[in-house]
Amino acid sequence: MTTTVSGTTKVSIEFRHDFADETPATPKMTRVPPGMTLFNAANWIGLPIDSTCGAKGTCGKCKVRILRGHNGATPADRKVFTEAELADGWRLSCRSEAHSDVVCEVPRLMGNPKAALMGFDRHVILNANVHKILLTLTPPTLEDQRSDYSRIRDALSQEGYEAEASLTLLRQLPGILRKSRWQITAVVVGQELVGVEAGDTTGRAYGLAFDIGTTTVVGMLLDLNSGASVAVRSTLNGQAIYGADVISRISYTMLNEDGLSRLNGVIVQTLNRLIADLLHEGQVAAHEVYEVVTAGNATMQHLFLGADPEAIGLEPFIPVVEDMVQVRAREVGLAILPQAQVHLLPYLGAYVGADLVAGLLATGLAQNEGVRLLVDVGTNGEIILGSAARTVATAAPAGPAFEGAQIQDGMRASDGAIEAVIITHDAIELQVIGGGSPIGLCGSGLLDAVAQLRLSGLMLPSGRFVQAEEAGQFVAPELARRIITDDEGRRAFVLAWAEESGGGKSIVLTQRDVRELQFAKGSIAGGIDVVMQELGVEADDLVEVYLAGSFGSYINPQSARIIGLVPPVPVERIKAVGNAAGEGAKIALLSFREREVARSLPEIVEYHELSGRGDFNDSFLSVLQFPELETLG
Amino acid sequence: MTTTVSGTTKVSIEFRHDFADETPATPKMTRVPPGMTLFNAANWIGLPIDSTCGAKGTCGKCKVRILRGHNGATPADRKVFTEAELADGWRLSCRSEAHSDVVCEVPRLMGNPKAALMGFDRHVILNANVHKILLTLTPPTLEDQRSDYSRIRDALSQEGYEAEASLTLLRQLPGILRKSRWQITAVVVGQELVGVEAGDTTGRAYGLAFDIGTTTVVGMLLDLNSGASVAVRSTLNGQAIYGADVISRISYTMLNEDGLSRLNGVIVQTLNRLIADLLHEGQVAAHEVYEVVTAGNATMQHLFLGADPEAIGLEPFIPVVEDMVQVRAREVGLAILPQAQVHLLPYLGAYVGADLVAGLLATGLAQNEGVRLLVDVGTNGEIILGSAARTVATAAPAGPAFEGAQIQDGMRASDGAIEAVIITHDAIELQVIGGGSPIGLCGSGLLDAVAQLRLSGLMLPSGRFVQAEEAGQFVAPELARRIITDDEGRRAFVLAWAEESGGGKSIVLTQRDVRELQFAKGSIAGGIDVVMQELGVEADDLVEVYLAGSFGSYINPQSARIIGLVPPVPVERIKAVGNAAGEGAKIALLSFREREVARSLPEIVEYHELSGRGDFNDSFLSVLQFPELETLG
Repeated sequence: MTTTVSGTTKVSIEFRHDFADETPATPKMTRVPPGMTLFNAANWIGLPIDSTCGAKGTCGKCKVRILRGHNGATPADRKVFTEAELADGWRLSCRSEAHSDVVCEVPRLMGNPKAALMGFDRHVILNANVHKILLTLTPPTLEDQRSDYSRIRDALSQEGYEAEASLTLLRQLPGILRKSRWQITAVVVGQELVGVEAGDTTGRAYGLAFDIGTTTVVGMLLDLNSGASVAVRSTLNGQAIYGADVISRISYTMLNEDGLSRLNGVIVQTLNRLIADLLHEGQVAAHEVYEVVTAGNATMQHLFLGADPEAIGLEPFIPVVEDMVQVRAREVGLAILPQAQVHLLPYLGAYVGADLVAGLLATGLAQNEGVRLLVDVGTNGEIILGSAARTVATAAPAGPAFEGAQIQDGMRASDGAIEAVIITHDAIELQVIGGGSPIGLCGSGLLDAVAQLRLSGLMLPSGRFVQAEEAGQFVAPELARRIITDDEGRRAFVLAWAEESGGGKSIVLTQRDVRELQFAKGSIAGGIDVVMQELGVEADDLVEVYLAGSFGSYINPQSARIIGLVPPVPVERIKAVGNAAGEGAKIALLSFREREVARSLPEIVEYHELSGRGDFNDSFLSVLQFPELETLG
Repeated sequence: MTTTVSGTTKVSIEFRHDFADETPATPKMTRVPPGMTLFNAANWIGLPIDSTCGAKGTCGKCKVRILRGHNGATPADRKVFTEAELADGWRLSCRSEAHSDVVCEVPRLMGNPKAALMGFDRHVILNANVHKILLTLTPPTLEDQRSDYSRIRDALSQEGYEAEASLTLLRQLPGILRKSRWQITAVVVGQELVGVEAGDTTGRAYGLAFDIGTTTVVGMLLDLNSGASVAVRSTLNGQAIYGADVISRISYTMLNEDGLSRLNGVIVQTLNRLIADLLHEGQVAAHEVYEVVTAGNATMQHLFLGADPEAIGLEPFIPVVEDMVQVRAREVGLAILPQAQVHLLPYLGAYVGADLVAGLLATGLAQNEGVRLLVDVGTNGEIILGSAARTVATAAPAGPAFEGAQIQDGMRASDGAIEAVIITHDAIELQVIGGGSPIGLCGSGLLDAVAQLRLSGLMLPSGRFVQAEEAGQFVAPELARRIITDDEGRRAFVLAWAEESGGGKSIVLTQRDVRELQFAKGSIAGGIDVVMQELGVEADDLVEVYLAGSFGSYINPQSARIIGLVPPVPVERIKAVGNAAGEGAKIALLSFREREVARSLPEIVEYHELSGRGDFNDSFLSVLQFPELETLG
């Protein structure tokens, strides 16, 4: 059955297990864009097929048998199967693209693949793209004058690997081969021979996963053999002094002649300092790091690549490249093995970046049954909604309120910021970063304050504060008197009196601050509304709501629900997945299967641009108000 | 019919033209190693199939219909053909590998392909690997937010090109696209997008072909659109001061810490000076050169790559790499477009280098009917014998005699060297380089002198001079008295008396010099004998004998025949093809089809190592003597 979804005709694939010694398992079905390999399609729905070469068509392990549907044999098939087997439908699933509906039989996975729980309840098979192969070469003789390179390639081919070497490596071959007396370890990454090491070094293979955030950069050093985390570090993005958010970074590149190269240099320096610390902590040498995966928003990834992000900042918001980019460590200046491969996860749109793609890997949102919502709250709200059946994404411009900007006593989430608020019948409790006296209000504190004011009845659904006198009728006087009115009749709520604050003056939440928050949350809630309508989904249908991004970790799910930032679902379904980008980068590093999923996500997830959409404006207006409390159930 | 040749099972391919409007042409047959594409196999036997994408499976023009034999449809086929066409046997010949015997029908070539006579009577279809495609892109909008890179790739795909960009190019995209107002010329080389230029620059596309000789480097700047030669220059290889031949260059790298990097730097400098001159003469900008092909012996190509040639110099003579190597201009330091592709032609063995592979392209030896012999005479004699049916190659160590070394009055072929000799009944005529008085004897003069002495009867088949008195009986006295005897009874022949010479002392050919020449020519003739026995070929079977290499141009074919350097064939069948390497590099630059031929030559030509072979020693001893004159016919 061929299904048309939003203009893309998908092909249906049915996978059957059929073994004599067990009850036939239920067939697994999926629908994929034409051209996807059976290997990737199977993996997509959690049906891993054997492979040691990284699905490059060389190891011959990913056999399947086509029962129905047309699939001609490829040259790779001919190397592996006999004519009789080909006639019987056997194919290498990593080379077999689905162009029409297919039914195929998948043999049982050989052995017990190493797997681990990663991200958020994801069962991931460890299968790094880095392979170290110990080779004992026969020394050359007059009867066997193959070149050094051919000798290695032939030996690799016997082990099921086909790989090409760079000039840098070719230059090193004669020395290493002869010094090692022809006993070497070849390092194959994907289809590249990135290194040849003397002796047996198969026990040591490392990779790095980075979440390049606008504010914070997180780096993980991973053992590619075991999947174990060797060291984890985070640091401030050195670009922070050139602007707090992506727009100010882009502006910096536009206003300064050498702005792009400076911001590029700074992020590379930040990464290299992290790398030095991680390697030191893990007792790993720089040349033992063979692969890197990065996640980050489009602007951060552009600046890391040294690609001009200017067009991302201006309508119609165009990146230089949106696909997964692969470069060498040397090309981008990372202080690891120069030939190491660096993979930048792809984007879904200029403002739904690789951090969200990583989030999809970490949550499995686009691969699972059941509709889930992923929201990254920041100056832009990035929104992804869907399931294996269909997934849509959008970005909503939220403005800086969630970062504490344009809020009278707002501040960034650093020491002295009120990050959480609880209002009881007669008191207000503040949680302050660093534990000292409060000096301002950061985004999560703002959200909490408004939510608590709504719960206490001190704020109306319209966002207006009640009058102090009216408040006195249902809360204690010490709370009611915190509602103050200035000379022009504008109300505000005093979170901390001057004597309670660290700054010597009171910290207040103004009516205008509340409006700012309303616009910010209205934009995101409006975006969510648009994609829910697009999928025909109601709040009750949502299995889970993930709050992602650095801000996502700090939001009180209850508060998010009270102010209507997220749909009204039971609060236990709302989960903070703040480290989703880093987790996703790690998954893509440790599993080439999952990296292939990431590669195909931009093709599979539908991106909807909100700018200029009438229904977004309607939704925005309809959700500006805060929900009535009774609607929250 | 599957034929086994020397351990390789070849598959047979029959190509049929079958058009209603003309008498069916005779089918063309060939046998190729399994896995060769039908496209390359057809080209191999002079049957070009249409293609605009460079046989990358994207333009869809290289259609053939399989009449007999098994060939599954590939993903590329599925993009081009309907199910009915696939069932009817239609395939893209560039994607269709022959793994068993095949009969296929080839449609007539569309249009009239541009072709030229190149090399030595080769009819070559001009089809450079560089494609410039004018693209008018639709500017991005909110409804079309594709990235800059996707926008270009989609437009290229519509024109039948699939190409990947490097990071360097990605970094340039946003600026060029917006400055050019979305009107650009894409430069696709093979499967790489190497450049994007503002506006329409399709008229300008250039390439460079180099013959990197041990002594002389020849460079050609070619117009890739027309195939015209824009400029040709040659210069001394700057490495000459570090040693005259490959062995002394290799020694230099072994004896000096920075020897390899120095010799690498020097040859790159030599090439860049040639490039500067060629570009200046042709009024071409450096960034308009998109591709380079180089030919040269293995040592010269290793030094150009910066790869250690040490193992080439020592038994068992192992290069770092023997395949065609592709690098970027930037990686090897050539002063042209940094992303330009540089292709180093492959080798047949450590001592049968890319200069000989180029020679095969220039002569068509391995592609034509009729057995031909190609000999490059130097310190090593490189020998290739064969036809389209089978070709074998070997290298014979000749020593430095042909270069005038270890010859008493020997010198290199420079001003003052006797380069040709004619002995009549009563006189000797010397041809001197530069036209002045002679000061020594170079290789071709040595060959001539010995051949003329043999013809005149002054030298016996054993190589011994006759006695002066005996000589007086059949030549004039002034000639006979040139045979002199020293105190120890050793004879010599005076080519120039002291008063005739430019050096103030007589120039003589000693008995020992003759022995040196005998060893040198014996080695080459012995090698020729081995490969002729290998193929079961007699001198009469040879259609042509090519003398290649810089020395080859200067050898008098008659003399080569008289001393037995080459088999006894009619002298008009002996041709000097001194510039074969440069011509071959040029052909490989102007025709991607011929470059594919070059790529497959190492797989097809059988290389025989002579070191330690008993039959070579036997042959060597049997040809040490000079032939009896009557055997020359």
